[in-house]
Amino acid sequence: MAQTISLKTEADADSAVAKAVAGVIAAGRAAALRHWVPATSGNFSVRIDAGRIAITRSGVDKGNLVASDILIQPLDEALLPGSSAEAELHTALYRQRPEIGAIFHAHSPAATVLSRLALGEATVRFTGWELQKALAGVRTHEAIVDVPVFANDQDISALSGRVDARLAQPAADAIAAPGYLLAGHGVYAWGATEADAARHLEALETLFEFELSYRRFIP
Amino acid sequence: MAQTISLKTEADADSAVAKAVAGVIAAGRAAALRHWVPATSGNFSVRIDAGRIAITRSGVDKGNLVASDILIQPLDEALLPGSSAEAELHTALYRQRPEIGAIFHAHSPAATVLSRLALGEATVRFTGWELQKALAGVRTHEAIVDVPVFANDQDISALSGRVDARLAQPAADAIAAPGYLLAGHGVYAWGATEADAARHLEALETLFEFELSYRRFIP
Amino acid sequence: MAQTISLKTEADADSAVAKAVAGVIAAGRAAALRHWVPATSGNFSVRIDAGRIAITRSGVDKGNLVASDILIQPLDEALLPGSSAEAELHTALYRQRPEIGAIFHAHSPAATVLSRLALGEATVRFTGWELQKALAGVRTHEAIVDVPVFANDQDISALSGRVDARLAQPAADAIAAPGYLLAGHGVYAWGATEADAARHLEALETLFEFELSYRRFIP
Amino acid sequence: MAQTISLKTEADADSAVAKAVAGVIAAGRAAALRHWVPATSGNFSVRIDAGRIAITRSGVDKGNLVASDILIQPLDEALLPGSSAEAELHTALYRQRPEIGAIFHAHSPAATVLSRLALGEATVRFTGWELQKALAGVRTHEAIVDVPVFANDQDISALSGRVDARLAQPAADAIAAPGYLLAGHGVYAWGATEADAARHLEALETLFEFELSYRRFIP
Repeated sequence: MAQTISLKTEADADSAVAKAVAGVIAAGRAAALRHWVPATSGNFSVRIDAGRIAITRSGVDKGNLVASDILIQPLDEALLPGSSAEAELHTALYRQRPEIGAIFHAHSPAATVLSRLALGEATVRFTGWELQKALAGVRTHEAIVDVPVFANDQDISALSGRVDARLAQPAADAIAAPGYLLAGHGVYAWGATEADAARHLEALETLFEFELSYRRFIP
Repeated sequence: MAQTISLKTEADADSAVAKAVAGVIAAGRAAALRHWVPATSGNFSVRIDAGRIAITRSGVDKGNLVASDILIQPLDEALLPGSSAEAELHTALYRQRPEIGAIFHAHSPAATVLSRLALGEATVRFTGWELQKALAGVRTHEAIVDVPVFANDQDISALSGRVDARLAQPAADAIAAPGYLLAGHGVYAWGATEADAARHLEALETLFEFELSYRRFIP
Repeated sequence: MAQTISLKTEADADSAVAKAVAGVIAAGRAAALRHWVPATSGNFSVRIDAGRIAITRSGVDKGNLVASDILIQPLDEALLPGSSAEAELHTALYRQRPEIGAIFHAHSPAATVLSRLALGEATVRFTGWELQKALAGVRTHEAIVDVPVFANDQDISALSGRVDARLAQPAADAIAAPGYLLAGHGVYAWGATEADAARHLEALETLFEFELSYRRFIP
Repeated sequence: MAQTISLKTEADADSAVAKAVAGVIAAGRAAALRHWVPATSGNFSVRIDAGRIAITRSGVDKGNLVASDILIQPLDEALLPGSSAEAELHTALYRQRPEIGAIFHAHSPAATVLSRLALGEATVRFTGWELQKALAGVRTHEAIVDVPVFANDQDISALSGRVDARLAQPAADAIAAPGYLLAGHGVYAWGATEADAARHLEALETLFEFELSYRRFIP
C-alpha cells in the first residue's frame, strides 16, 4: 500500500511538473505573438508545488520554447546553471508569497517607455479605466491602482531586496497591482494561477498602452 | 399535424438559438484578433427572437468562446447566474429597439483613450471621413455623426437609464451613430444583423483611430 | 480552322477574365490583412483587356471576396448594377491610360489622416525616403515625388473630372506618384501589372506612415 | 581515399550553400511578417565560407523568397547580374570582418523615421534600456551604445567607403552596436551567426521603437 501511494505521489509530481512546463511554454508563446519578448528577452515561471517552480532558461526565444528550455528550480537552493540572473526576482517572490502560482515578465514598448517616464514618481498610478477591474481585488474604475516602478539594476540581489521591501509596504491610499515595472526594462506580473497571471499581464500591458497614449494629450 | 408543426417550430427555435450562439462566438473571435477585448473584457450578444438573446457569460476569454460560455437570456427576466453586470445594457437596448439584432462591446485602445478625452463634450463628433458611410443612415462624408460619451458607472441600472434617456433624444443637428462610448471603458455598437453590428464596430473603431491620430495634429 | 481559332480565342478570353478575377481577390485579401479596407471599404480592379476590367462590387468584405463579388465592367458602358459609385474613378483612369493594368483603393489610417492634414497644400510631397524608389520612375531618394490630394466629393463624376485634369498636368518640379489621395477617404494606387499596383500600394501606405510619424517631430 | 575526401568536401560545400540559402529565406520571411521589408525593400545575406555569401537578388518580395531569388556571390568578384546595388554594402563588410556570419537590412517605420531625426548628430545613442543587453558585448543597461547614422547615397561605393571608415573608428566613450542606420532608408544589422543577426535586428528595431516613442515625451 505504502509503495502504491508512493508511486501515485511520484506520478502526481511528474504530472505537476509537466503541467507547469506546459504553462510556461504557453505563456511564452502568447507573449511572443504580441511582440512583448523581443530578442530572447522576458522570462516566465509557473509554481509546481510549495518548493519548486518551472522557469525559462536564459537566452532562449520565448516564442518557441521546448521542454529542455525550462529549468525545474527548487526555491530554497542556488540558481541552477543556465538560469537567467533575473530568476532570483521570481524565486524571491514565490518564497515571500505562497499564494502566487505564476510570474510572467515581458518587455513591451508601452511598459518599457512608460516605466522610464514614470521613474521620477516611482509609481504608475491608474484610475478611471474599466480594464483595471481585470486585476484581482479591483472592483471599480474609480479605484486607484498603483504599479511600483523601480530603477533598473544589474545587481539582482539588491534589486530583489528593494522590490521585497516596497511590496511589503504598499501605499495606504491605493490598491497594489499584481505587478511592478523596472524602468527601461519591462513589467513583472503574477497571479494565483497561470490564467490569472496571463490575464494580469494582458491587462497591465493594455493599461500601459492606454496610459501612454492618454499622456500624449493630457501630460 | 399540430404536433408536426409544433415539432417544426421547436426545431426552428433550436436552429435560431444555434445560429445566435454561433454569431456570438464569431464576433468574439473577430474582436480578439484585433486585441479589442483584452483580459476577458468585452461582451457580445445576438438576438434570437423577440424575447431572447444569446450573450457572453462574465469573465471568459472572448477569443476562445465555446457554446457553454453563452447564456440564453430572456429579455423580460432577471439576469441569469453568471451574467456580466453589463448584460443589462444589452437587454435594455434590445427591449427599447426591436430593430436591433446584435450588440457588440469592446475595449480598444483608441475607443478607450478617445472616450476619456471627449468626456467633457459628452460626444465624439465625426465629420469629413468617408468611412462614416459604413454606418447605417450616413450617405456622405459631409454628414455630422455623433457618438454619445457617458461617464462610466458601476451602477449599471443607473447608467442604462442615462443611456436610454440620451439615445431617445439625439442631437437635432447630427446623425446618431449606431453606438456609444463609456469613458475610459470602451464602445457599444449595434446593428440590425450580426453583419451590420460587426461592420459598425469595425467602422467605429477605425474612425476612433483616425480621430485620435488626427487630434495629435489638430487639437 | 476558323472555328478552332475562334474557340481558342474564347478560351483565352475566359482565361484572361479568370486571371483578372483572381488578381482582384488576392489584392483584396492582402489589403484586408493589413486592416486597410475596414468595414467593407476599398475597391480593387484589374484590367482584362483593352475594353474590360474586373472590379469589386459595392458593399462586400474585401478580405473574403468570391468570384460573384467581382463585376466584369466594359470600359465604354454605364456602370453595372451592384457597382460602387467609385467604380467610375477606376474606369476613367483605365480609359485615359492604356498602360494601367490594375488599380487598388484602400482606407488605411495613415493615408486617411495624412490626406486631411495635407489637403491645404493639395499635395503630399515626399523626398528623402529610400522607399520612394519602389515607385515606378523614381531612381533616387533625392527625387521629389508628388501625391495629389483632392477634396472628397460624393459627386464621383465631378471628382473624376478633377482627378483627370490634375493628373494631366503634373507639377514640373516633381515626379508624379502612381497614386493620389482623397482627403479623409484614402488612397488610389495603380500600376502596369497587379504586382506593380500591389508594390505601389504598399510603398505609398508605408511612405504615408513614415511621413505621418515624421511630422509629429518635424511639423 | 583522396577522392572520398574530395567528394565529402564537395558535399559539405553543397550543404553549406543550402544552409546559407535556407538562412536567407528564413530571415526574409521573419522580417516580412513584421512589415519591415515593404514593397520588395530590404536585403539579406548569410556567409557560406571565407570567400562566398548567399544574398537576395534585387527586386524580389523578401517574404516569399525561393532558392532562385538568392545569389551565391564570391566576395572578391564583381557583383553578379541581378544583384541589388546595395549588395556592395554586404560584401565590403564581410571582407572587412571575417567574424561576421550574416547581415540583414530592413526598412521598418521606426528605424526609417528615427534615422532622419538623428542624422544631425550622426548617431543614435542608446542608454538605459535593458534590451541593449541583447546586443553582443553589452552587459548592462547603463552602457552607452552607439548606432552610426549615415546620410543616404545612391553612390553605394562612396557610401560603403564612408561606412568602413566610420566603423573602423568607433567612439571612445561608447560600445559600437552591431549595426548602422542609413537616414530615411533603414537599418543594417549583423552577427556572427544567423541567430545573432536575427536577434540583433529584432533588438535594434525594438530599441528604435522605444526611442522614437520616448522622444515624443522627452525631446
